[in-house]
Amino acid sequence: MNKIEHIGIAVRNLEEANKTYKAILGVDSYKTEKVESEGVDTSFFKVGDSKIELLAATNPESPIAKFLEKRGEGIHHIAFNVEDIQTEIERLKGEGFILLNDFPKSGADNKLVAFMHPKSANGVLVELCQEKVAE
Amino acid sequence: MNKIEHIGIAVRNLEEANKTYKAILGVDSYKTEKVESEGVDTSFFKVGDSKIELLAATNPESPIAKFLEKRGEGIHHIAFNVEDIQTEIERLKGEGFILLNDFPKSGADNKLVAFMHPKSANGVLVELCQEKVAE
Repeated sequence: MNKIEHIGIAVRNLEEANKTYKAILGVDSYKTEKVESEGVDTSFFKVGDSKIELLAATNPESPIAKFLEKRGEGIHHIAFNVEDIQTEIERLKGEGFILLNDFPKSGADNKLVAFMHPKSANGVLVELCQEKVAE
Repeated sequence: MNKIEHIGIAVRNLEEANKTYKAILGVDSYKTEKVESEGVDTSFFKVGDSKIELLAATNPESPIAKFLEKRGEGIHHIAFNVEDIQTEIERLKGEGFILLNDFPKSGADNKLVAFMHPKSANGVLVELCQEKVAE
Protein backbone atom coordinates (compact mmCIF):
# COMPACT_ATOMS: atom_id res chain seq x y z
CA MET A 1 0.00 0.00 0.00
CA ASN A 2 2.13 2.88 -1.22
CA LYS A 3 -0.46 5.68 -1.28
CA ILE A 4 -4.14 6.55 -1.03
CA GLU A 5 -5.12 6.23 -4.67
CA HIS A 6 -8.60 7.69 -4.18
CA ILE A 7 -11.57 8.10 -1.87
CA GLY A 8 -14.93 7.03 -3.28
CA ILE A 9 -17.99 9.11 -2.35
CA ALA A 10 -21.52 7.89 -3.10
CA VAL A 11 -23.79 10.69 -4.38
CA ARG A 12 -27.35 10.86 -5.67
CA ASN A 13 -26.84 13.40 -8.46
CA LEU A 14 -23.46 13.42 -10.18
CA GLU A 15 -23.96 16.75 -11.91
CA GLU A 16 -24.84 18.55 -8.68
CA ALA A 17 -22.06 16.80 -6.74
CA ASN A 18 -19.55 17.80 -9.42
CA LYS A 19 -20.43 21.45 -8.79
CA THR A 20 -20.14 20.98 -5.02
CA TYR A 21 -16.74 19.30 -5.17
CA LYS A 22 -15.45 21.77 -7.72
CA ALA A 23 -16.30 24.51 -5.23
CA ILE A 24 -14.70 22.63 -2.31
CA LEU A 25 -11.54 21.48 -4.04
CA GLY A 26 -11.04 24.49 -6.31
CA VAL A 27 -10.48 22.29 -9.38
CA ASP A 28 -12.72 20.80 -12.05
CA SER A 29 -13.43 17.11 -12.43
CA TYR A 30 -10.82 15.90 -14.94
CA LYS A 31 -12.71 12.82 -16.09
CA THR A 32 -16.12 11.15 -16.03
CA GLU A 33 -16.46 7.46 -16.78
CA LYS A 34 -19.35 5.00 -16.87
CA VAL A 35 -18.51 1.58 -15.38
CA GLU A 36 -21.24 -0.69 -16.74
CA SER A 37 -20.16 -3.75 -14.73
CA GLU A 38 -20.64 -1.84 -11.44
CA GLY A 39 -23.71 0.13 -12.50
CA VAL A 40 -22.09 3.51 -11.80
CA ASP A 41 -21.22 6.81 -13.35
CA THR A 42 -17.99 8.17 -11.88
CA SER A 43 -16.26 11.55 -11.80
CA PHE A 44 -12.65 12.14 -10.74
CA PHE A 45 -10.90 15.11 -9.12
CA LYS A 46 -7.16 15.37 -8.46
CA VAL A 47 -6.05 16.38 -4.96
CA GLY A 48 -2.28 16.26 -4.53
CA ASP A 49 -1.11 12.72 -5.21
CA SER A 50 -4.61 11.24 -4.69
CA LYS A 51 -8.09 11.54 -6.20
CA ILE A 52 -11.68 12.00 -5.15
CA GLU A 53 -14.06 9.69 -7.04
CA LEU A 54 -17.75 10.60 -7.02
CA LEU A 55 -20.04 7.62 -7.69
CA ALA A 56 -23.68 7.76 -8.79
CA ALA A 57 -25.80 4.67 -9.44
CA THR A 58 -27.05 3.99 -12.95
CA ASN A 59 -29.42 1.20 -11.90
CA PRO A 60 -31.31 0.37 -8.68
CA GLU A 61 -29.54 -3.01 -8.24
CA SER A 62 -26.01 -1.59 -8.21
CA PRO A 63 -23.95 -1.65 -4.99
CA ILE A 64 -23.96 2.17 -4.90
CA ALA A 65 -27.77 2.32 -5.16
CA LYS A 66 -28.01 -0.10 -2.23
CA PHE A 67 -25.46 1.86 -0.21
CA LEU A 68 -27.40 5.11 -0.81
CA GLU A 69 -30.66 3.46 0.20
CA LYS A 70 -29.15 2.09 3.42
CA ARG A 71 -26.73 4.82 4.49
CA GLY A 72 -27.44 7.88 2.38
CA GLU A 73 -24.76 9.90 0.65
CA GLY A 74 -21.24 9.75 2.02
CA ILE A 75 -17.84 8.10 1.87
CA HIS A 76 -18.14 4.67 0.28
CA HIS A 77 -14.57 3.32 0.13
CA ILE A 78 -10.85 4.03 0.39
CA ALA A 79 -8.63 2.77 -2.40
CA PHE A 80 -4.93 2.11 -1.87
CA ASN A 81 -2.49 1.86 -4.73
CA VAL A 82 -0.43 -1.33 -4.84
CA GLU A 83 2.39 -2.46 -7.11
CA ASP A 84 1.24 -6.06 -7.51
CA ILE A 85 -2.42 -6.61 -6.71
CA GLN A 86 -2.39 -10.43 -6.86
CA THR A 87 0.49 -10.58 -4.37
CA GLU A 88 -1.37 -8.18 -2.05
CA ILE A 89 -4.56 -10.25 -2.28
CA GLU A 90 -2.61 -13.36 -1.26
CA ARG A 91 -0.74 -11.51 1.50
CA LEU A 92 -3.96 -10.13 3.03
CA LYS A 93 -5.73 -13.50 2.83
CA GLY A 94 -2.70 -14.98 4.59
CA GLU A 95 -3.13 -12.37 7.34
CA GLY A 96 -6.72 -13.58 7.80
CA PHE A 97 -8.56 -10.79 5.97
CA ILE A 98 -11.73 -11.51 3.99
CA LEU A 99 -11.28 -10.55 0.35
CA LEU A 100 -14.37 -10.05 -1.82
CA ASN A 101 -12.30 -10.87 -4.90
CA ASP A 102 -9.74 -13.67 -5.07
CA PHE A 103 -8.60 -12.32 -8.41
CA PRO A 104 -8.48 -8.69 -9.57
CA LYS A 105 -11.22 -7.39 -11.82
CA SER A 106 -11.34 -4.43 -14.18
CA GLY A 107 -12.35 -1.14 -12.50
CA ALA A 108 -12.65 2.52 -13.41
CA ASP A 109 -9.71 4.71 -14.38
CA ASN A 110 -7.67 1.97 -16.09
CA LYS A 111 -7.20 -0.05 -12.90
CA LEU A 112 -7.24 -3.65 -11.77
CA VAL A 113 -9.16 -3.70 -8.48
CA ALA A 114 -10.11 -5.99 -5.59
CA PHE A 115 -12.12 -5.27 -2.45
CA MET A 116 -11.76 -6.35 1.19
CA HIS A 117 -14.84 -7.00 3.29
CA PRO A 118 -15.60 -4.03 5.63
CA LYS A 119 -15.87 -6.49 8.53
CA SER A 120 -12.15 -7.09 8.08
CA ALA A 121 -11.23 -3.44 8.43
CA ASN A 122 -13.31 -1.77 11.14
CA GLY A 123 -16.25 -1.02 8.88
CA VAL A 124 -14.15 0.39 6.05
CA LEU A 125 -14.57 -0.89 2.50
CA VAL A 126 -10.95 -1.10 1.32
CA GLU A 127 -10.15 -1.29 -2.38
CA LEU A 128 -6.76 -2.36 -3.71
CA CYS A 129 -5.88 -0.98 -7.11
CA GLN A 130 -3.09 -1.40 -9.57
CA GLU A 131 -2.60 0.55 -12.79
CA LYS A 132 -3.18 -1.62 -15.85
CA VAL A 133 -0.17 -1.88 -18.12
CA ALA A 134 -0.32 -2.19 -21.91
CA GLU A 135 0.37 -5.76 -23.03
CA MET B 1 -6.88 22.03 -0.81
CA ASN B 2 -3.47 20.79 -1.89
CA LYS B 3 -3.63 17.17 -0.69
CA ILE B 4 -5.56 14.63 1.36
CA GLU B 5 -3.89 15.15 4.73
CA HIS B 6 -5.59 12.17 6.36
CA ILE B 7 -8.65 9.97 6.53
CA GLY B 8 -10.20 9.57 9.98
CA ILE B 9 -11.63 6.15 10.90
CA ALA B 10 -13.79 5.68 14.02
CA VAL B 11 -12.96 2.44 15.89
CA ARG B 12 -14.14 0.87 19.14
CA ASN B 13 -10.81 -0.53 20.34
CA LEU B 14 -7.69 1.39 19.37
CA GLU B 15 -5.25 -1.37 20.30
CA GLU B 16 -7.04 -3.98 18.17
CA ALA B 17 -7.51 -1.55 15.28
CA ASN B 18 -3.80 -0.68 15.39
CA LYS B 19 -3.00 -4.35 14.79
CA THR B 20 -5.52 -4.56 11.96
CA TYR B 21 -4.23 -1.47 10.17
CA LYS B 22 -0.61 -2.47 10.69
CA ALA B 23 -1.46 -5.72 8.89
CA ILE B 24 -3.34 -3.94 6.08
CA LEU B 25 -0.89 -1.11 5.50
CA GLY B 26 2.32 -3.00 6.23
CA VAL B 27 3.63 -0.25 8.52
CA ASP B 28 3.36 0.50 12.23
CA SER B 29 1.45 3.41 13.71
CA TYR B 30 4.07 6.15 14.06
CA LYS B 31 2.25 8.14 16.74
CA THR B 32 -0.59 7.96 19.24
CA GLU B 33 -2.05 11.11 20.74
CA LYS B 34 -4.85 11.87 23.19
CA VAL B 35 -6.96 14.92 22.24
CA GLU B 36 -8.74 15.85 25.47
CA SER B 37 -10.86 18.57 23.90
CA GLU B 38 -12.39 16.08 21.43
CA GLY B 39 -12.58 13.13 23.85
CA VAL B 40 -10.50 10.86 21.60
CA ASP B 41 -7.40 8.74 21.48
CA THR B 42 -5.82 8.81 18.03
CA SER B 43 -3.26 6.73 16.19
CA PHE B 44 -1.55 7.71 12.93
CA PHE B 45 -0.18 5.66 10.02
CA LYS B 46 1.71 7.08 7.03
CA VAL B 47 0.54 6.05 3.55
CA GLY B 48 2.44 7.85 0.81
CA ASP B 49 1.89 11.58 1.21
CA SER B 50 -1.21 11.09 3.42
CA LYS B 51 -2.12 9.50 6.75
CA ILE B 52 -4.72 7.19 8.23
CA GLU B 53 -5.98 8.43 11.63
CA LEU B 54 -7.72 5.90 13.85
CA LEU B 55 -10.04 7.51 16.43
CA ALA B 56 -11.39 5.87 19.60
CA ALA B 57 -13.67 7.65 22.07
CA THR B 58 -12.41 8.32 25.58
CA ASN B 59 -15.82 9.38 26.90
CA PRO B 60 -19.43 8.60 25.96
CA GLU B 61 -20.27 12.24 25.16
CA SER B 62 -17.54 12.68 22.55
CA PRO B 63 -18.48 13.08 18.86
CA ILE B 64 -16.73 9.79 18.04
CA ALA B 65 -18.73 7.90 20.71
CA LYS B 66 -21.95 9.30 19.21
CA PHE B 67 -20.85 8.42 15.68
CA LEU B 68 -20.06 4.82 16.75
CA GLU B 69 -23.42 4.53 18.47
CA LYS B 70 -25.30 5.79 15.43
CA ARG B 71 -23.30 4.38 12.51
CA GLY B 72 -20.87 1.80 13.90
CA GLU B 73 -17.21 1.68 13.01
CA GLY B 74 -16.12 3.22 9.72
CA ILE B 75 -14.79 6.26 7.95
CA HIS B 76 -15.54 9.39 9.95
CA HIS B 77 -13.98 12.26 7.99
CA ILE B 78 -11.63 13.35 5.21
CA ALA B 79 -9.08 16.04 6.04
CA PHE B 80 -7.59 18.25 3.37
CA ASN B 81 -4.38 20.17 3.88
CA VAL B 82 -4.61 23.92 3.24
CA GLU B 83 -1.99 26.67 3.28
CA ASP B 84 -4.11 29.29 5.03
CA ILE B 85 -7.05 27.88 6.94
CA GLN B 86 -8.73 31.19 7.77
CA THR B 87 -8.73 32.20 4.11
CA GLU B 88 -10.21 28.80 3.16
CA ILE B 89 -12.93 29.13 5.83
CA GLU B 90 -13.92 32.51 4.41
CA ARG B 91 -13.75 31.28 0.81
CA LEU B 92 -15.99 28.26 1.55
CA LYS B 93 -18.50 30.37 3.50
CA GLY B 94 -18.57 32.72 0.53
CA GLU B 95 -19.40 29.73 -1.70
CA GLY B 96 -22.39 28.98 0.57
CA PHE B 97 -20.95 26.07 2.56
CA ILE B 98 -21.85 25.59 6.22
CA LEU B 99 -18.74 25.68 8.40
CA LEU B 100 -18.91 24.22 11.91
CA ASN B 101 -16.06 26.50 12.95
CA ASP B 102 -15.79 30.15 11.95
CA PHE B 103 -12.27 30.17 13.36
CA PRO B 104 -9.73 27.34 13.42
CA LYS B 105 -9.25 25.35 16.60
CA SER B 106 -6.37 23.24 17.82
CA GLY B 107 -6.51 19.61 16.64
CA ALA B 108 -4.35 16.48 16.77
CA ASP B 109 -0.94 16.21 15.11
CA ASN B 110 0.06 19.86 15.55
CA LYS B 111 -2.71 21.18 13.31
CA LEU B 112 -5.17 24.04 13.20
CA VAL B 113 -8.47 22.53 12.09
CA ALA B 114 -12.01 23.47 11.05
CA PHE B 115 -14.92 21.30 9.93
CA MET B 116 -17.60 21.67 7.27
CA HIS B 117 -21.10 20.36 7.88
CA PRO B 118 -21.66 17.01 6.10
CA LYS B 119 -24.90 18.43 4.65
CA SER B 120 -22.68 20.79 2.66
CA ALA B 121 -20.65 18.01 1.07
CA ASN B 122 -22.88 15.05 0.12
CA GLY B 123 -22.76 13.48 3.56
CA VAL B 124 -18.99 13.80 3.96
CA LEU B 125 -17.53 15.41 7.08
CA VAL B 126 -14.72 17.53 5.61
CA GLU B 127 -11.92 18.80 7.82
CA LEU B 128 -9.57 21.57 6.78
CA CYS B 129 -6.16 21.49 8.42
CA GLN B 130 -3.11 23.64 8.44
CA GLU B 131 0.21 22.82 10.09
CA LYS B 132 0.85 25.02 13.12
CA VAL B 133 3.97 27.13 12.85
CA ALA B 134 6.23 28.08 15.77
CA GLU B 135 5.71 31.71 16.82
